[in-house]
Amino acid sequence: MFIRILGSAAGGGFPQLNCNCRNCADVRAGKPGFRPRTQSSVAVSRDGQNWVLLNASPDLRQQIAATPALAPSRQSGLRTSPIKAAVVTNGDVDHVAGLLSLREGIAFTLYASQRVLATLAANSIFNVLDERLVPRVALNAGQATELTAGGIGLGLTVEAFPVPGKIALYLEDPAAGPSLGSQAGDTVGLRIADAASGAAFFYIPGCAGVDAALAARLRGARLVLFDGTLYTDAEMLAQGLSAKTGKRMGHISMSGPDGAIAAFRGLGVERRVFVHVNNTNPVLREDSPERAEVEAAGWAVAFDGMEIRL
Amino acid sequence: MFIRILGSAAGGGFPQLNCNCRNCADVRAGKPGFRPRTQSSVAVSRDGQNWVLLNASPDLRQQIAATPALAPSRQSGLRTSPIKAAVVTNGDVDHVAGLLSLREGIAFTLYASQRVLATLAANSIFNVLDERLVPRVALNAGQATELTAGGIGLGLTVEAFPVPGKIALYLEDPAAGPSLGSQAGDTVGLRIADAASGAAFFYIPGCAGVDAALAARLRGARLVLFDGTLYTDAEMLAQGLSAKTGKRMGHISMSGPDGAIAAFRGLGVERRVFVHVNNTNPVLREDSPERAEVEAAGWAVAFDGMEIRL
Repeated sequence: MFIRILGSAAGGGFPQLNCNCRNCADVRAGKPGFRPRTQSSVAVSRDGQNWVLLNASPDLRQQIAATPALAPSRQSGLRTSPIKAAVVTNGDVDHVAGLLSLREGIAFTLYASQRVLATLAANSIFNVLDERLVPRVALNAGQATELTAGGIGLGLTVEAFPVPGKIALYLEDPAAGPSLGSQAGDTVGLRIADAASGAAFFYIPGCAGVDAALAARLRGARLVLFDGTLYTDAEMLAQGLSAKTGKRMGHISMSGPDGAIAAFRGLGVERRVFVHVNNTNPVLREDSPERAEVEAAGWAVAFDGMEIRL
Repeated sequence: MFIRILGSAAGGGFPQLNCNCRNCADVRAGKPGFRPRTQSSVAVSRDGQNWVLLNASPDLRQQIAATPALAPSRQSGLRTSPIKAAVVTNGDVDHVAGLLSLREGIAFTLYASQRVLATLAANSIFNVLDERLVPRVALNAGQATELTAGGIGLGLTVEAFPVPGKIALYLEDPAAGPSLGSQAGDTVGLRIADAASGAAFFYIPGCAGVDAALAARLRGARLVLFDGTLYTDAEMLAQGLSAKTGKRMGHISMSGPDGAIAAFRGLGVERRVFVHVNNTNPVLREDSPERAEVEAAGWAVAFDGMEIRL
C-alpha cells in the first residue's frame, strides 16, 4: 500500500488565517524550523494508480495540485481522475468540505457512517455530487467493506468503528447536555487493509480518548495515524485563543497521564504517527522540547507530502 | 479603493483537478504562456486595512495565504483578520464554499440576496459560522447598502441587482422547465462604491446575457469585472468535455454577436476586465488569437493577484 499524507494540520491549517499565536506568526514569517501544513486528509492506494481519499479537507484542490500521483493520467481520457473513492470519518468541515472540490463530473464512491451520510443528505450543497456518478455507501460498524468504483475493486477493504468523540461543531445541540447530541457513528476510526496481503493500518484523526475497546483493537498494529490535535488539554485556553479544552472539542492530548502517548505505551504498535495537528501545538516547532519528547516516545509528527509504504 | 483579484478562474480552477484538456494539460506541465488560476473571488478595501470579500471561493485559504494584506495584523490581537465582510453573488459552490474557511471565530458581516441567504440557512454546515459573530444581511435589489462590521462602516456601499442567470447547479429543478426553478436574486451583480468619493465599479462574475436594463446600468462605468467563463457558447461541447452550452450554464460568451464584447461596444465602459474564466477558454493561452482579439477589443483577462486602484 502507498499512503500519502495530503494534509497534516487540524481545522484551520497552519498557519490559520486569523491566528497570530506564536506558531502561526513564526510559520507565516518563514522562520526556520516550521513547515506550513494544510488540513487533514490522507490518500491511499493499493497499486499506485487508483487512489482513495481518507477525508476530504477544504484544501483538497491545493493538495491534489501538489501531488503528481493524483493528476489525471494523459492516457485515460479528457476528464478523468485517479481518485476513485473517498472515506469520511466524521462530518466536520475539515473532513467533508473538500468533497465539494470533487464536483466536476468525477466518478467516485463515497463511504461514511450512516450518521454522516444523513448529514450530507440534509445539506443540499452536496447534491453537486451527482448520485449517478457518486454513489454513497454506508459503512456498518465493525464490518470490513471492499472499496470499489464502478463495480471494480480497488484492492482495499475498510472497516469503520466508533471511537470516543463528538458530533460536528455545526450540529452540536447544547440542549442535549454534555453529549451535545452525539451518537455512535458521528466519529469513526478506520482500519484500511490490503485485500491481497492482509497488511493493514489504522487512521483515527479525531478521538477523545483511548478506551479498553480501542486499545484492544490497536494492539500489535503495524501503523496507526492518530489524532495529534493538542499537546496538552488546556493549551488553547493557556494561549488565550479559545475557551474550550481538547476534551470539549472531542480530542485527546498527546501528553499527560490520559494522553495518547501514555495510552499507546505497551500496545506494541510498530509505527505511530500523529496527524490532525492543531496550529497551537508546540510540536510544530521543530526545536521544541515537546517535539523532542514526542519523538523520544517513538512517535512521528506527520507533514504534508509524507509518504509511507506498507 | 483597492481591488485585488484573489481568484480569476471559474469553478474547478485552472488547471481543473480532473481535466486533461489542452489548456489544463499545458498549464499543469508548466508550459510558458500559462498562469495557474484559483477560483472566483475578489477582495476590495477603502483604506487598505479593512477588506471585503466579493464571493468566497473554495480556494480562499490558499488565496489569503498568497495575499499579505489579508494576514492578521500583529498589532490587533491573537485571533484577528482584516476581512470584515463578505458579499456573495449567488449560491454556486465556487462562490460560497470558501465561507466555510472563515469559520475559526472570525467576526464579519455576510451579505447576499434573500434567495441565497435562504439556501445557506437550509444547509446546516454553514451554521459553523456562529450568528453572534457573523450576522447575515439581506441585500435588497436596487438599494445601496453601507457595508459595516460590528456597527462600524467600512467606507463602501454595495448595491445588488438581478442579472440574467440561473439558480445554483445543486438546486436545479428539471421539473420546473427551462428556468430550472431560477428566480430573481439567484444571481446578482454588484455595484461597489466608495462612500466618500463616489468612485464605483461593477462586479458581475456570472451573467447569462446583457439585456437593456443591464446595458443602461453599466453605461459610462469606470470599471466592470465581468463574466468571462467561455469564449464561445459551445466550446465545452466542441472539446468533448460537457454536454452543456454556456447558455445552459447561465454564462454569456466573450465572442460572437450575442457575446460580452459585442454587448459592451458603445457602452463607454472605461476599463473592462474578464473574471471567472473557465479552464477551456482559449484566452488562457497567452499567445492565442482569441487572447489577442479580446485585448484588441480593449478587454483585460484577470489573473490571480491582479491589483486595480480606483
